[in-house]
Formats: sequence, C-alpha cells, structure tokens
Amino acid sequence: MALDYEVYDLGNVALQRGATIRDCKMAYKTYGTLNPGQDNVIVYPTWFSGQHYENEWLIGAGKALDPTKYFIIIPNMLCNGLSSSPSNTPEPYNGPRFPQVTIYDNVRAQHRLLTEKFGIKRIRMVAGWSMAGLQAFHWGALYPDMVDVLAPFCGAARCSRHNFVFLEGVKAALTADAVWMEGWYTDKPARGLRAAARVFAGWGLSQSFYREQLDAKALGFSSLEDFLVGFWEGIILPRDANNLLAMLWTWQNGDISDNEIYKGDFKAALRAIKAKTYIMPSKTDLYFTPEDSEIEAANMPNAKFIPIPSVWGHFAGGPGLNPEDGAFLDSKLKELLAS
Amino acid sequence: MALDYEVYDLGNVALQRGATIRDCKMAYKTYGTLNPGQDNVIVYPTWFSGQHYENEWLIGAGKALDPTKYFIIIPNMLCNGLSSSPSNTPEPYNGPRFPQVTIYDNVRAQHRLLTEKFGIKRIRMVAGWSMAGLQAFHWGALYPDMVDVLAPFCGAARCSRHNFVFLEGVKAALTADAVWMEGWYTDKPARGLRAAARVFAGWGLSQSFYREQLDAKALGFSSLEDFLVGFWEGIILPRDANNLLAMLWTWQNGDISDNEIYKGDFKAALRAIKAKTYIMPSKTDLYFTPEDSEIEAANMPNAKFIPIPSVWGHFAGGPGLNPEDGAFLDSKLKELLAS
Repeated sequence: MALDYEVYDLGNVALQRGATIRDCKMAYKTYGTLNPGQDNVIVYPTWFSGQHYENEWLIGAGKALDPTKYFIIIPNMLCNGLSSSPSNTPEPYNGPRFPQVTIYDNVRAQHRLLTEKFGIKRIRMVAGWSMAGLQAFHWGALYPDMVDVLAPFCGAARCSRHNFVFLEGVKAALTADAVWMEGWYTDKPARGLRAAARVFAGWGLSQSFYREQLDAKALGFSSLEDFLVGFWEGIILPRDANNLLAMLWTWQNGDISDNEIYKGDFKAALRAIKAKTYIMPSKTDLYFTPEDSEIEAANMPNAKFIPIPSVWGHFAGGPGLNPEDGAFLDSKLKELLAS
Repeated sequence: MALDYEVYDLGNVALQRGATIRDCKMAYKTYGTLNPGQDNVIVYPTWFSGQHYENEWLIGAGKALDPTKYFIIIPNMLCNGLSSSPSNTPEPYNGPRFPQVTIYDNVRAQHRLLTEKFGIKRIRMVAGWSMAGLQAFHWGALYPDMVDVLAPFCGAARCSRHNFVFLEGVKAALTADAVWMEGWYTDKPARGLRAAARVFAGWGLSQSFYREQLDAKALGFSSLEDFLVGFWEGIILPRDANNLLAMLWTWQNGDISDNEIYKGDFKAALRAIKAKTYIMPSKTDLYFTPEDSEIEAANMPNAKFIPIPSVWGHFAGGPGLNPEDGAFLDSKLKELLAS
C-alpha cells in the first residue's frame, strides 16, 4: 500500500528539554506547486491527535487554501503517530520513554523541513486550528521575518493555566486505568481512553451546543449517549495512549516565550510577531477562550481579534463539522491572504 | 462522641424509580427556634458531597440566615454519607446496590421531616447552592402553596444536557480505576477519586479565576499543582466513591418536571412555582450557566434573574471561599426575606 504522504528524515534532533530524538522523522503532505518565486507557501500544521488528512476539509479549489494557487504543506506534529512518536520509535526511546517535545521543537523541525527540503525562504501564511494555532503563533515569534500572515483559530500563544487544568483532567482520566501501566501497556487501555474522551466531550463543544441539541439536530446522533460513544469515544479510542499523553504534554507546555530568545517574557514575544495576524477564537470556546485571544491581540503590533460567532465551542475551528463556521473561517482566510 | 446533628427515621421510603429504602434515615441539623406562629422557617439543603456543617458559612447572627430570627433546617441529602447512603446502609442495599434516588425523592423526604417531625405548614424560604438549588426549585414546583420565597444560587431547575456531559466525565474518571471494581471495592479507589477531582478542577472555577491566579493570590496555594492536590483532591478523597456516584446520578437526573405532576412538561413546572424567586447563578459558572437561569426566570411568574458578578465560577455560591461573593449573596437573601 502506497503512503499518501512523504517523510523527511531530520536525523538526530536535540530537543529543548535536553533529550535527542535519533533518526527523527517528520511526516508531511503537500498540496499544489511551489511557485518559482516561492511566494505561495502556506504552512498548515496538525492539531492534537490529528493527522494530515484530518486537515484537508479546509483545502480545495476556490477555497482560501487553494492548491491551484498555493503550495500548502501540512507537517504532522511530532507524537501524532505519523511523525516520530512514542508508538513508532524503536527501542530504547519508544512508548513512555519517548522524550518530551515542545511546540518550539515542532516548529524548529518544520523550519528545517521547509528550508532544507524545499529551500523555502518566505512563508505567505501559517494557519491552524487548536494546537496548530499554538504552532502558528510560534512561527510568528521564532521566525518573525519569514512569515507574512498568521491565522491561528481556536488557538493561543501559550497554554493558559485553566487550559492546563482542563488537560490535567483528561490525563487523569486516561491514566486512572490500571491497564495503562504507567505507559508500559501491552493491551490498549480502552477504559482510560474512553474516560478521557468523555472528559473531552464537555469541553470541546459549548453549553449552547448541547442546549440546542446540535449533537442530534446537526450531527445526526440518536441520543446524547450515542454522541458520547459514537463521536467522542470514536475519536479517541483508535489513537495510541502514549502518543496522546505526549501531545498533551506538548500542549500543556506550549508558550511562545519559553525559550532562549524571549526567556519567559510573554509580552515581549507577542510584540516581536511582525506578521499581520487574524486571531480567530470561537466565541464559545471553553479552553482556548476569546478573552485570552483578546489579550494577545492587544499586545501584538499587527493583530486583529476576530471571534467566530458560533455555539460550536472549540469545534467551530475544525474539523469541518459546522459548514457555517467553515465558511466564516474561509472568508477571513481569503481576506487575510488578499491583504 | 456526641453527634452534632439529629436523625429522623423515615421508615420505609418507596422511591420514584421503584426501589425502597428500608429504615431510611435523614440526618439534619437545626439552628435557632421555631416561632409559635411557625412563620420563620428556612430550609437550606446540602450540595453535592457536602454535609450540613459545610453549609454553615452562610449562617450567623446579623446575616440573612440569622438563627436569632429564623428556624433554619439543613437536611442532609440522601447518599451524602450522613443520611441513608451506600456507605452506611446495611446489607443487602449497601454499596452499589443502594437504589437510585432523585431530587424529587429527597424533597419529598424533607417534606415529611418538616411536617411530621415539626408540624411545619409554611416555609419562609428555601435556599441553597448547586444541587441544593435543584432541591430549592423542586420545593417550589412540588409544594407551590407552602413556600414563600426561593433562593437557588448556582443551581437550576433541571440538569442541563451539557451539565450531564460534564458529570459523565467525572464519573468516567472515577470508574476508570480498576480498584473501584464496579462499586464492589474493598480498598478505596484513590486513583479514580483523584482523577475525578482533577476533572472537577477545570469546571468548578472559571477561566478568569485561573488567569488571575486566585488559587495563589486569594486562596494561598503555592502552585497550580498544590491547588489541584491540596484543594481538589483534598475535597474528594475523603468521600466514599459509591456515595459520590449515587449523588452524581441524583444530579444528572434532577428535573422539576420529571414526575407524575408535570409529566415532563418543564415549562409547566416552572410556571407552577408561585414563590417569589431570586435565581442567582454565577456569571462565570461553567455548568449551572447563567443562560439556563435566564431561561428559567423568563418562564416563571415571579422570578428575578440576578447573576452574581464573580470570576469564581461555580464556587461564587459556596462554600464561602470568596468573601465578596458571600456578601453579595447575603445582601440578596436579606432583600428577598424582607420582601
């Protein structure tokens, strides 16, 4: 079976927190053709647990992310099961021994892919949902002279303290399962994965989403329990527990200023982002909140705060569940690319 | 050691869902003296997992709930470890065999305590936080001619679908622990209890609470992790897992219209509440949301929607963590009692 993606061999990658991923692989997929002038590059990273094909809903001819105009690169986040991850790394760095990877590490690796593999010097846009929003902000802060425009939606420049606590609940649910065995499982910790999915269910969509019964009326589930099993447990169960936990660590520790450049000065890191930026939270997102986005926009020289008017909570930004939100996002991405 | 509370023996109580609690006990405590005219009764039920002494922060001379003026009764909710509960009921109805108890069952039992034990015919006020708010609404709907005023704070007339989903996450986290053994545990399922506590941590307080670092600045915890262990795990760990799960069932199935009187007609049940009511949600409550309160107030003949202006989320309503919220509540309760 032919893979539908490419793999770039990064060699040995020394990470921010001290460990090294040996023979590090970055899985990626490209859409469209790189212009000779290299002025049509869009970087569109993956979200928590997502893989490149789960990003494709926003790409298409006539859309903002139009592969007939742009050269779109989706780099798979480290630990997502396709790029180097706990689940696919040989001993001795497999499973729970896989090292801690930051968003900074991810974006530095993506930078190597773009520059070494494609010789890219300039990026028209970095866009992305959720943890990909974290990556977009990092692109802006780590490579301020390389990126024209940024479009983080339902993301943030760092994981807020409340967001961190929400993720502690997800982790605690998953790891309460004895089958997990501190990561040394031989059987899938299904009960813990299902529990983590149920914790996520209350956070991912808004109170109004549930009040208006959009699980049934828009998504066609036959009951609330059907939605919890069919949608939520269905998303989480196929994924590897150690991969999920590694990405949760990445998420919890994401912060554009937590590096040698900004030394923890969050406002300085925000000020350094030169790219024209549309920060697009969902009005009803319970963990990447519009309040946090507003604070970020106020501290950036060239950012606009554009909340998505939606009751779909965090899922206003992906992966294409609500056509109206998708259309709103697409129109704003077009506006931003045209500017 | 003398108990600081009384116990009323309800005998055999046939429950709404079909089972019977034999030799059913209701633990309660009273404050102040019943007037000869019996016009000074306040009923002030307990919240999820709470016991009567955890309600006492709102009672005191000079406060709205003034025991020198009022006869205040705190009935302990069934399953809370003091009234009949999985943890204190003899075989064969102990542990996971303890029957399902609704809020309706609780309020009917409280009504028997008031009428049979004290001969009370009229209640000046029913007030309460969270699940006690559910009980207050039930008092208004089940005994509309008996209650003068109602003050549910951070509560609701029914458990919303989103609230239900949030509680599914709490349950899933607790029950992912193999030590729980479907309720037949011999050892305390500590890992599951701690996981449930961590899930609760993101829901109980608002995003702004954490953003403003009130865990440290107002409550004095030394770090976020210190708060998660010291406060959250500290609240949940001492409580019995089956009691908690029984109360979660009670919470999830709370609905003033789910009975033979209203037959599921929620609006009819709201319309039937004659008591003057102050519905006081917290502006930042993530599960008993102000939006739900507003809908309830709009459907009641004599209700006012009075949100508590607080960033303390659900904990704006109790148990006395933030003095400003407590003062706001107290002033509104005084206003309501004076009306």
